[in-house]
Amino acid sequence: MTQNETAPGYAPDREAHLARLRRIEGQVRGLQRMIGEDAYCIDVLTQISAVTRALQGVALGLLEEHMRHCLVEAAAVGGAEADVKVTEAKAAIERLVKS
Amino acid sequence: MTQNETAPGYAPDREAHLARLRRIEGQVRGLQRMIGEDAYCIDVLTQISAVTRALQGVALGLLEEHMRHCLVEAAAVGGAEADVKVTEAKAAIERLVKS
Amino acid sequence: MTQNETAPGYAPDREAHLARLRRIEGQVRGLQRMIGEDAYCIDVLTQISAVTRALQGVALGLLEEHMRHCLVEAAAVGGAEADVKVTEAKAAIERLVKS
Amino acid sequence: MTQNETAPGYAPDREAHLARLRRIEGQVRGLQRMIGEDAYCIDVLTQISAVTRALQGVALGLLEEHMRHCLVEAAAVGGAEADVKVTEAKAAIERLVKS
Repeated sequence: MTQNETAPGYAPDREAHLARLRRIEGQVRGLQRMIGEDAYCIDVLTQISAVTRALQGVALGLLEEHMRHCLVEAAAVGGAEADVKVTEAKAAIERLVKS
Repeated sequence: MTQNETAPGYAPDREAHLARLRRIEGQVRGLQRMIGEDAYCIDVLTQISAVTRALQGVALGLLEEHMRHCLVEAAAVGGAEADVKVTEAKAAIERLVKS
Repeated sequence: MTQNETAPGYAPDREAHLARLRRIEGQVRGLQRMIGEDAYCIDVLTQISAVTRALQGVALGLLEEHMRHCLVEAAAVGGAEADVKVTEAKAAIERLVKS
Repeated sequence: MTQNETAPGYAPDREAHLARLRRIEGQVRGLQRMIGEDAYCIDVLTQISAVTRALQGVALGLLEEHMRHCLVEAAAVGGAEADVKVTEAKAAIERLVKS
């Protein structure tokens, strides 16, 4: 894992992201409960889709803040750094689109 | 939530699904830890993609068992039940594809 | 490509699928026009998302008819055939979800 | 459609994008042929997944060039423009992820 010397772009919204992830953790425990209680397959699938969407919401929020801060700052400084950040962001978006 | 009179199609693999969901729950807690420790945005995004893929793996496993048991049994019995099950499965697949 | 001795499950809706695919072909030509005319990147991306959704709509329609006919018929006959069809359908759904 | 006063970020790779879209157009015509010839449903689905992935490849390429040029240039200039571009890019990524 890359180490950050400075606060990441999402730092101002850290609490909001943590709250969303805690809710997602609760949803994953809810899925375990559903399966433990023999819930109907289709109902479990519906709930998995909801959790997936919630996770992607967190990802899109992080990505926006990353572009708004890290990427824009690298571009303002100029040089090769912005290029590296764009390549990296593109790979992350590709993983999101394909997952 | 629809109530099931009988064991759902995924019953024989219940423990495997629960184990995967417990691992996913741990991954979601790991995401919270990463954000609490100011991990680099792109690393958090990579990890979110991994969790999303893991969730979709559970969904695809449940769906396969649903088709293999509920859908095939409804079809063997004949009548309108199989039609209802197909419509329902199609809607669930649509939610997965779009999430 | 697997050869079909009998009409595929989507045969009754063949014309509707062809009409949708001809519209999608027109949309892909529209994308070429946009790029040839230096359209704004974001507008091209919006249009690509629309074409992708249209393609997935065709896929979900075909899949529903496949389940309703091929899968349900195999199940009614009984034996190993239904199992093979389910495995095959699961792999196709997986490719759709991940694409 | 937004009009561009200047060449879009993808201009240097215009020919490569057009070549990919022409190939995709050919694939969509191939899908029509498959359905016209009663190809097996699962084979059509496999091919639709391939076309979807090809379209997403074009989208990711355009997006990367958009970030590398439009976004980075707006950031270098400074001011509110970069913010607008980020919001717009985020919305486009969201449409790609959900489609």
